[in-house]
Amino acid sequence: MTELSVINIGICGLGTVGQGVWKHVEGARAALESRLGVKLRLHRASVRDLRKKRSVRVPANRLTTDPLAVATDPDVHLVCELIGGTTIAREVTLAALRLGKTVVSANKALLCAHGPEIFAAARQHGGHFFFEASVAGGIPIIKALREGLVANRFGLIYGILNGTCNYILTRMEREGLSYPEILAEAKALGYAEADESLDVEGWDTAHKAAILAYLAHGTWVPTKSMLVEGITQLTQADIAYARDNGYAIKLLAVITRDFASDELFVRVHPTLVPRTKVLANVNEVYNGISVTGDVVGETVYIGRGAGQDPTASAVISDIADAIILLRRGNTPLPEPVEHRCPLTPLEHIEGRYYIRMDVKDEPGVLARIATSTAQSQVSIASVLQRPSERAGAATLILTTHTSNEKAIRATLARLRRLSSVLGEPLLLRIGDFTA
Amino acid sequence: MTELSVINIGICGLGTVGQGVWKHVEGARAALESRLGVKLRLHRASVRDLRKKRSVRVPANRLTTDPLAVATDPDVHLVCELIGGTTIAREVTLAALRLGKTVVSANKALLCAHGPEIFAAARQHGGHFFFEASVAGGIPIIKALREGLVANRFGLIYGILNGTCNYILTRMEREGLSYPEILAEAKALGYAEADESLDVEGWDTAHKAAILAYLAHGTWVPTKSMLVEGITQLTQADIAYARDNGYAIKLLAVITRDFASDELFVRVHPTLVPRTKVLANVNEVYNGISVTGDVVGETVYIGRGAGQDPTASAVISDIADAIILLRRGNTPLPEPVEHRCPLTPLEHIEGRYYIRMDVKDEPGVLARIATSTAQSQVSIASVLQRPSERAGAATLILTTHTSNEKAIRATLARLRRLSSVLGEPLLLRIGDFTA
Repeated sequence: MTELSVINIGICGLGTVGQGVWKHVEGARAALESRLGVKLRLHRASVRDLRKKRSVRVPANRLTTDPLAVATDPDVHLVCELIGGTTIAREVTLAALRLGKTVVSANKALLCAHGPEIFAAARQHGGHFFFEASVAGGIPIIKALREGLVANRFGLIYGILNGTCNYILTRMEREGLSYPEILAEAKALGYAEADESLDVEGWDTAHKAAILAYLAHGTWVPTKSMLVEGITQLTQADIAYARDNGYAIKLLAVITRDFASDELFVRVHPTLVPRTKVLANVNEVYNGISVTGDVVGETVYIGRGAGQDPTASAVISDIADAIILLRRGNTPLPEPVEHRCPLTPLEHIEGRYYIRMDVKDEPGVLARIATSTAQSQVSIASVLQRPSERAGAATLILTTHTSNEKAIRATLARLRRLSSVLGEPLLLRIGDFTA
Repeated sequence: MTELSVINIGICGLGTVGQGVWKHVEGARAALESRLGVKLRLHRASVRDLRKKRSVRVPANRLTTDPLAVATDPDVHLVCELIGGTTIAREVTLAALRLGKTVVSANKALLCAHGPEIFAAARQHGGHFFFEASVAGGIPIIKALREGLVANRFGLIYGILNGTCNYILTRMEREGLSYPEILAEAKALGYAEADESLDVEGWDTAHKAAILAYLAHGTWVPTKSMLVEGITQLTQADIAYARDNGYAIKLLAVITRDFASDELFVRVHPTLVPRTKVLANVNEVYNGISVTGDVVGETVYIGRGAGQDPTASAVISDIADAIILLRRGNTPLPEPVEHRCPLTPLEHIEGRYYIRMDVKDEPGVLARIATSTAQSQVSIASVLQRPSERAGAATLILTTHTSNEKAIRATLARLRRLSSVLGEPLLLRIGDFTA
């Protein structure tokens, strides 16, 4: 058993997050070294363009354009994969793991696409793969699920996992502006990507939810088996309804497991969250996750979900954990127990619903709508009529009593067929979840 | 290096928490064993009375009345000290650590009174001391501070750390009842101890704050060096003011560190927390902690702060962590770097204040009070007069602009000397903290 006294860190990808890691390892070096009992050396980093200006000063002889050279460098003990994407990042990760090295990653897409292959490579060659930064930025949620709450089974996990969406929803609520207006501004400010679709259509949240579900339940749920809806269809009519009725609208990932039937389901959708819930008050770019364990009850975790510094904080905590293992040979870490849960059938996913639609402003419309919902066994709890921007139309907002995803889909299909319903009805879930 | 295949756990103290640990280790046994790769054996437990009925079935031959026999049993790898107090618990803990065993503890009082001795014994003999359950029950806050946020320095940590106080304050707010009325009911329901003073006078919170401050800053701050005030003097006048002005009153521990001057301070006091802060909405028996790191920004952790199950959840997470270390020899864990911070002088502890006092209902009183505050350089932001229950008196509520603890104490001393001030003025801090 060798006692390492210097740990050489290789950083693949010196973009926003990579530079943050470099900066904060330098900044916290004295404390980290004293705590961990080793010297830390930022040994090498790979970049795409050697001449590009960076916010951190890296000696030229430590830079290369070849990430594989960093990942396979015999002197590098620990590789940070911060390139992103699923092609080069996968090569780099597998190459390092196959040499028995430890890899720290912030790459949720890679993990979702190739999780089983990555974990198998780590297991087989005695290395480790750490990924705290892949979900919810600086919030130590991976550690909480894997370690802090290890005594628990998780009937319900739900959370705000995308800072861009939460920022847009917060501003729509506070300022009364439309989704396209806020989005344009968020892009200008750098709070939303040039191609925002991964964020606002829910796929980024879905990737993160897949990782949490795997950690909690040992099953990889592909995003195509999830229900995924984004925030692009929300209007001020929805925001106003939420405000007037004691809700905030949040894009939530919801992971439910029924231990009697073993069924698991993962869904992502804009949700009316009662203001009495802590997550309704998590605003701006913050993320928040509620985790209900059968032993601990409900716990909630809140923090910045993205950005250079919070992500670097998570990467560095993984580096520290990896070093504790590396210092005295690579002790195997407990992995989630692999388990293939069946997916919950839609008729078992219960909840209350909100439907907003434009209808022709003429007699008999409500009767036809009520007939459609009744035919799908969905029972209406409230109906509200509002002026519509569409000429000759009114906006109807319905809420339902407890129903289920199968019945509500049948209802929407029926409503779409009605000639009095104009355009596409919008469906929101009411988030009064209990485990 | 021996690979342990069976881990024998000894439990000292089979009270509420001990029975919870026993129950949930049994309940989660299959998952824990599969995850950790060892068999778990609840080897022995010590009790005070062998004949007492318990909620878990423990074979008679595994029970003893001698906790030291459990702690020193050569077959026991891991000792859970769940006796409480600082006498037998200390003996048991030190005896186990001196044999190189690992100890898991929920005992905040022991840690506060004998922390340095306990950590030294662990270090010297190659064992470990784990204490996740000592602060905030099931919330993995110790792990977050030690590991998840290891890249950070903590300028500000504040939180609700006592469930009994939070329960009383929540009910005072919701039901308009007085402190003595709610306390009596809480005692009847078992939510408050027969002797409630440790909780309601702030000492339990202070113990937990000392542990968080040690983890974050490496300095043990004795409770006598803290500012500690409890909730016993709060009335419906305070609750009403808070409600009408956008606050909730919470008993907070506040740990501030100034990295320029190196100064550290720990205080515990009822606080007017703005409703826009997440912690203002943490109610009932829940605990909540806000941790601001220089890299990660603000993170918040919420969960049940006490009780059999949440505490067992934390103890079992420590057991799992201990087993990962035990399986392949006892790797040293990073300890906080010991460091003796100077205490912040009172004049550097700044904030806004709320003073409520009964005064004689006669002309000139406000002038005399305003003169007293001005003499201490405290500037008044608002004055409110309310009816008093005292005959011939009025209740005055002042708030101040930003001042400091030294000036506000001088102000209170002056106010007490005024003959127009009746009884003892009540001081609250306004909790608009920023790091």
